[in-house]
Amino acid sequence: MAQLNDIAIRMLQEKNFVFIATLGKTSGAPQVTPTWVDVDNGYVLVNTAIGRMKQENSKRDPRVALSAVDSTNPYSFTAIRGRVVEQITGQAAEDHIDKMAKKYLGKDKYPFRQPGEKRVILKIKPERVVVQE
Amino acid sequence: MAQLNDIAIRMLQEKNFVFIATLGKTSGAPQVTPTWVDVDNGYVLVNTAIGRMKQENSKRDPRVALSAVDSTNPYSFTAIRGRVVEQITGQAAEDHIDKMAKKYLGKDKYPFRQPGEKRVILKIKPERVVVQE
Repeated sequence: MAQLNDIAIRMLQEKNFVFIATLGKTSGAPQVTPTWVDVDNGYVLVNTAIGRMKQENSKRDPRVALSAVDSTNPYSFTAIRGRVVEQITGQAAEDHIDKMAKKYLGKDKYPFRQPGEKRVILKIKPERVVVQE
Repeated sequence: MAQLNDIAIRMLQEKNFVFIATLGKTSGAPQVTPTWVDVDNGYVLVNTAIGRMKQENSKRDPRVALSAVDSTNPYSFTAIRGRVVEQITGQAAEDHIDKMAKKYLGKDKYPFRQPGEKRVILKIKPERVVVQE
């Protein structure tokens, strides 16, 4: 497991969006979308809904990559390659999306929940971390 | 070839960074980094240097994905999947990085050129375009 250094952790703790790449189902072509992000005890956490492309892609092939730029300096960036080692569902994932809404929107409850939606945390183990200050 | 709609074109024309995913050499694992971007006649152009990871990766496997958020509204984003159909080197690529320096830095000459560096334009044909307003 690669260490997230202080700069990477700070970039993930701040209200930056990260861009996560996963591998598509037909032939492993890359896909990339922006998302909220959390960091916990050396793991990168991305909360999505069951059935979304990044959830299904990373279930089939757990290899992912993420990158973020510093909101105050876009020439400072973090790029992480890693692996989804666990998909966490249930109450922990529902609570976690509210935590993300608090972080990014200042709201106690995630306001965009769809009827029937089930949240899932992609728990990502970093395997390579590049930071450019 | 998928059409870039007006919103996607605007997002690529403005001074937004895009995040580009390519596939790594050992086993096709995804990699993602931020980069400057240009758009020309329906193609997405990314200028890098020969030998950089995204150049070597996309030469081996031309499938790429890109995403950008709107600088004024991070919940509005474009996600593009496509293919590098040409790598353009020589004077055209050297001139183009100066054009990018003008766009992003307001400078006539790209100020970060390294000794011996050769620039290359990755000319990307969009195959799938998703825009969320």
